[in-house]
Amino acid sequence: MDGISSPSPSSSVRSKRKRHTPQELVDGILSGSRSLLSKAITLVESNSPAHRETADEVLMALLPHSGSSIRIGITGTPGAGKSTFIENFGTRLCEQSKQVAVLAVDPSSSITQGSILGDKTRMERLSRHPDAFIRPSPTGGNLGGVTRKSRETIVLCEAAGFDVILVETVGVGQNETTVRSMVDFFLLLMITGGGDELQGIKKGVVELADAILINKADGDNTIRAEATRQEAERALHYLTPATPGWTPLSLKCSSITGEGVDAVWKMIDTFQRQLSESGQLTANRNQQRLDWMHAMIEQQLIRNFYADPQVAKALVGIRERVLAGDLPASAAADALLQLFQP
Amino acid sequence: MDGISSPSPSSSVRSKRKRHTPQELVDGILSGSRSLLSKAITLVESNSPAHRETADEVLMALLPHSGSSIRIGITGTPGAGKSTFIENFGTRLCEQSKQVAVLAVDPSSSITQGSILGDKTRMERLSRHPDAFIRPSPTGGNLGGVTRKSRETIVLCEAAGFDVILVETVGVGQNETTVRSMVDFFLLLMITGGGDELQGIKKGVVELADAILINKADGDNTIRAEATRQEAERALHYLTPATPGWTPLSLKCSSITGEGVDAVWKMIDTFQRQLSESGQLTANRNQQRLDWMHAMIEQQLIRNFYADPQVAKALVGIRERVLAGDLPASAAADALLQLFQP
Repeated sequence: MDGISSPSPSSSVRSKRKRHTPQELVDGILSGSRSLLSKAITLVESNSPAHRETADEVLMALLPHSGSSIRIGITGTPGAGKSTFIENFGTRLCEQSKQVAVLAVDPSSSITQGSILGDKTRMERLSRHPDAFIRPSPTGGNLGGVTRKSRETIVLCEAAGFDVILVETVGVGQNETTVRSMVDFFLLLMITGGGDELQGIKKGVVELADAILINKADGDNTIRAEATRQEAERALHYLTPATPGWTPLSLKCSSITGEGVDAVWKMIDTFQRQLSESGQLTANRNQQRLDWMHAMIEQQLIRNFYADPQVAKALVGIRERVLAGDLPASAAADALLQLFQP
Repeated sequence: MDGISSPSPSSSVRSKRKRHTPQELVDGILSGSRSLLSKAITLVESNSPAHRETADEVLMALLPHSGSSIRIGITGTPGAGKSTFIENFGTRLCEQSKQVAVLAVDPSSSITQGSILGDKTRMERLSRHPDAFIRPSPTGGNLGGVTRKSRETIVLCEAAGFDVILVETVGVGQNETTVRSMVDFFLLLMITGGGDELQGIKKGVVELADAILINKADGDNTIRAEATRQEAERALHYLTPATPGWTPLSLKCSSITGEGVDAVWKMIDTFQRQLSESGQLTANRNQQRLDWMHAMIEQQLIRNFYADPQVAKALVGIRERVLAGDLPASAAADALLQLFQP
């Protein structure tokens, strides 16, 4: 049983050859079958309405078996060493008999055989571990689609018995808010960078973090990493904690030497215990589900509006007049709303 | 001509007695009549559809005459000394022959005669200055309504020849984002507070700021204020600048002694010149108008959805099932969207 899920094209061919009933998928996932887990994820990721129906049935049956993992979001700009960190961190967790699933969220990537191999290559040790499961970012164009798929994949992985779900995202702005809204703990990876440490980290991301982790704290870089860590700590002091009841921390580690990596888990473990006891963890997750329901509804309403042919036609001219400053925005909004006849 | 606008109740009575045509209001405002400006603001703030039509006509005619002021948003938690600062800052600007309008945005306040007197009392010197105009927060319940009214009041004040528009908001969360989206420069007032400086400042507000101003830097507090200023400067370093092309600054001042207050204007003046030359100021305002049009549309779509009787009825039970975790959020969203037949 390999840790890498089958690439979408071949598995969808296979699913045509052998269709599994929803019950078979549910039973298979609950008994720990990686291949049926992969099949169910492919189903959840499918854009076809027929697959959607089966997916909903599977999800509904598995929901009561989900929710027992700790969900950790990991972000950082390219170059912060996310893969190396996840490789080291995930492998350590597996060695402590934990089952670790790694999911990626990146709406911009179009997944090809190549990038799946890329995931395998960049987390070589972890991907070979029998207790690890790595799934690349689902395709699906818009962020809403990708979000839905990723959230549902978390449910499937939890039902399959994974203890730790790592959700990785590249630091390109909106993604972080999305990932933040589906995880318990959000970790921001940074590196030292000569006084300009935050370059490249998008607006608002620091405030989403339950912890900032200064990576690459090794060799000549150790002292600078500690200085950056202290700076980050002071900055966190200026921000409202992302999770009520948890004061964000600033740590440093080396994903190469492994120094400081165990402390990251220790921190997250403390977070989980503390917030489980207070009931905050459950409250957060309930709120996340409800927020997500509303977000999906609102996205759809807005999509329907702008897809309306009358609206789309008028918008071009109205937009120009608002930009030029000869039509008040309020009058423009009223005019467009009146055109909308769903 | 007094600097305080007439309170809404009496002026709406008066407007029934003597109706002004849109053209009279437009001409009056352009020629600098404070009483017609007040009347037009009352019109813009009215919730009656008939007033709305006249208001739209006036706005449309005045739009080409707007846009020449600098719009400054000012926020800070209660106790940060916003009123005292605005009193000192505004009076200085008036003494430099500037015309200064002070608007308040506070959706939570219900404006009574009392609170207008409150505004007058808390900015006594400024309110008596012939070049100042103070207008309390419009009533209107939801933030969307208040926002619309405030934005349109800015247009009216600019057409009336005001050079500086100060938009004050209390630091209670969502307001700041709203005010940020209608001003050029956003100033966050803070005070020293024994290591816990940020207490009370809501999530995300620091990142909206073009400058942090440590107020009450006087007497025994001067040294601590400087330390807080430096801390704030370091924190700003960790955040993406609110306005592209402008590096946020951290200053300190005393609204009592007046020390440092001129430097605030000097900074904003530099900001205005720099961003006017680069074209960023115009670009920001155009984008703000367009964003606002979209925001109004989207708010209305969402309001219509949740006001639908079928949706409202089903939502109660569906919400509970999602919170309890026995209905996936995606299925819940689909079910509610199917019920919606506008």
